[in-house]
Amino acid sequence: MSSHIPSRPGQAPPGPQPLPGVDAIVAVGSGKGGVGKTTLAVNLALALAKLGHKTGLLDADVYGPNVPLMLGTSAQPKVMGENRIVPLDVHGLKVISVGLLNPGDKPLIWRGPMLHSIIRQFLGSVEWGTLDYLIVDLPPGTGDVALSLIQTVPLTAAIVVSTPSDVSLQDARKAIEMFRQMKVDIAGMVENMSYFVCPHCHNEIDIFSRGGAEKTARQFGVDFLGSIQLDPEIRKSGDEGRPAVLEGESSADRAPARISSPQPLALFDHPSARSTHAPARSSDRLRPPLLPHCARSAIAHATSAP
Amino acid sequence: MSSHIPSRPGQAPPGPQPLPGVDAIVAVGSGKGGVGKTTLAVNLALALAKLGHKTGLLDADVYGPNVPLMLGTSAQPKVMGENRIVPLDVHGLKVISVGLLNPGDKPLIWRGPMLHSIIRQFLGSVEWGTLDYLIVDLPPGTGDVALSLIQTVPLTAAIVVSTPSDVSLQDARKAIEMFRQMKVDIAGMVENMSYFVCPHCHNEIDIFSRGGAEKTARQFGVDFLGSIQLDPEIRKSGDEGRPAVLEGESSADRAPARISSPQPLALFDHPSARSTHAPARSSDRLRPPLLPHCARSAIAHATSAP
Repeated sequence: MSSHIPSRPGQAPPGPQPLPGVDAIVAVGSGKGGVGKTTLAVNLALALAKLGHKTGLLDADVYGPNVPLMLGTSAQPKVMGENRIVPLDVHGLKVISVGLLNPGDKPLIWRGPMLHSIIRQFLGSVEWGTLDYLIVDLPPGTGDVALSLIQTVPLTAAIVVSTPSDVSLQDARKAIEMFRQMKVDIAGMVENMSYFVCPHCHNEIDIFSRGGAEKTARQFGVDFLGSIQLDPEIRKSGDEGRPAVLEGESSADRAPARISSPQPLALFDHPSARSTHAPARSSDRLRPPLLPHCARSAIAHATSAP
Repeated sequence: MSSHIPSRPGQAPPGPQPLPGVDAIVAVGSGKGGVGKTTLAVNLALALAKLGHKTGLLDADVYGPNVPLMLGTSAQPKVMGENRIVPLDVHGLKVISVGLLNPGDKPLIWRGPMLHSIIRQFLGSVEWGTLDYLIVDLPPGTGDVALSLIQTVPLTAAIVVSTPSDVSLQDARKAIEMFRQMKVDIAGMVENMSYFVCPHCHNEIDIFSRGGAEKTARQFGVDFLGSIQLDPEIRKSGDEGRPAVLEGESSADRAPARISSPQPLALFDHPSARSTHAPARSSDRLRPPLLPHCARSAIAHATSAP
């Protein structure tokens, strides 16, 4: 089942409306670009799918849609009668991205209202079907895309990614404040590019500093979900379209998880009972501890690639 | 002397109008965030000022204005009668940023038209005075800010920054295509985070891959301005508000420049004759070889910090 969001001219825009069939919508944001938001979103989505959840991934970074490259796909989604878009099925994920509809190097030089329009289309005209989780990879910033998303559908939670550098944290704090102002629950914060282990001498080097995201999470009363080391293999796996989560699976000798989790990992089952109409704010059973766990799980997967 | 861009409602927006008193306007863009765009813009502007040029720096990254942090300032610009804004004077640079007008963690949750409005204000209502160069630090993406800038003032040139990773280059190609579509000259491309030298064993590691920006520049017929290594000191200097270019100056024992320049550096004098009314497209004397040189010079400065 899918939702169609009406958008009749002259009508006042309706408040956030649940996507029928979609249980939880989780945004991955950062404030600053280039911190690993898309890498986390892709691997989180794949980790959720591997855990048995029906999962979709919406690449909402209209100007820099890197999800197709990271998933190693360039197929075009099918469009059915009455402008219904069928998302791609990639590694068991339902995926949609501007990068699939507008492949190649031609940029979309679009002003804000066009962003609003495409986000509403991605939510309302895409045949998501029934999903346990829809992961949304946000663009950097606190502008049109985030606003349109939050005003169109009820977000279950947001995950904020940052490197430990002060510059990245400065923008991450703005993202936290934006979600709070817009009454979106924050599932937690992830520190990416936390430290680097020299492959030659095995010394640890804090290239982008270290520990800042955990400190910021504490200051803002937000859960800290864990740190991901700066690993050339994770970057490479993204560039080559073979996400770290999947690599980990196919390797016989997985390296030990490099996650530095503040709490011991624990498995939580996904609720078996599902309603076709999710409540405006998805129920607590989908929020902590499940979401932080899933993020941790994704991080653990991502960082345990060989 | 300063320019005032009229913005009367009901009037068709005028085409790009030169900023009287400002010789060259150079945008630093990237497509992707987090690649070192602001670090390059700040150090390029400071390098130009050190070379004796009157230089301004406009931080156009409205959602993630990191220029004040990188310059170590949080002073508030003065507003004079009739909404004229006096830019800060920091290390000899005239600087304006949303981060100065809206300090702290409160985000600007703005839609596109507000971005357009603030960019026009930063160009038209700021007392830039006479400048040889106005460096503009663009936000990531190919949206409202870049569009408004290009449609409001004639850009002399743009510099595109990328890391060598495929994901970053994918977005950098879109930035190149955007500038081309909008008829903006591209002064060249810079590869940032090109490689990493372990401070313990001194081995070089290509964390974000290597050489991709030079290859892309060649493919697109764009000058390659040089590579900057991934240096924790550059990141740290940005986080601590003491730009690498200035650090290099105060240090007695400067490390050798780590720039990997495709051509030998050569000094070019800035034209002594200046007109108060710059032509719509600033004359060739301001473009190559001066601009690429200045970028190289800034890179050399930035990468020769102790």
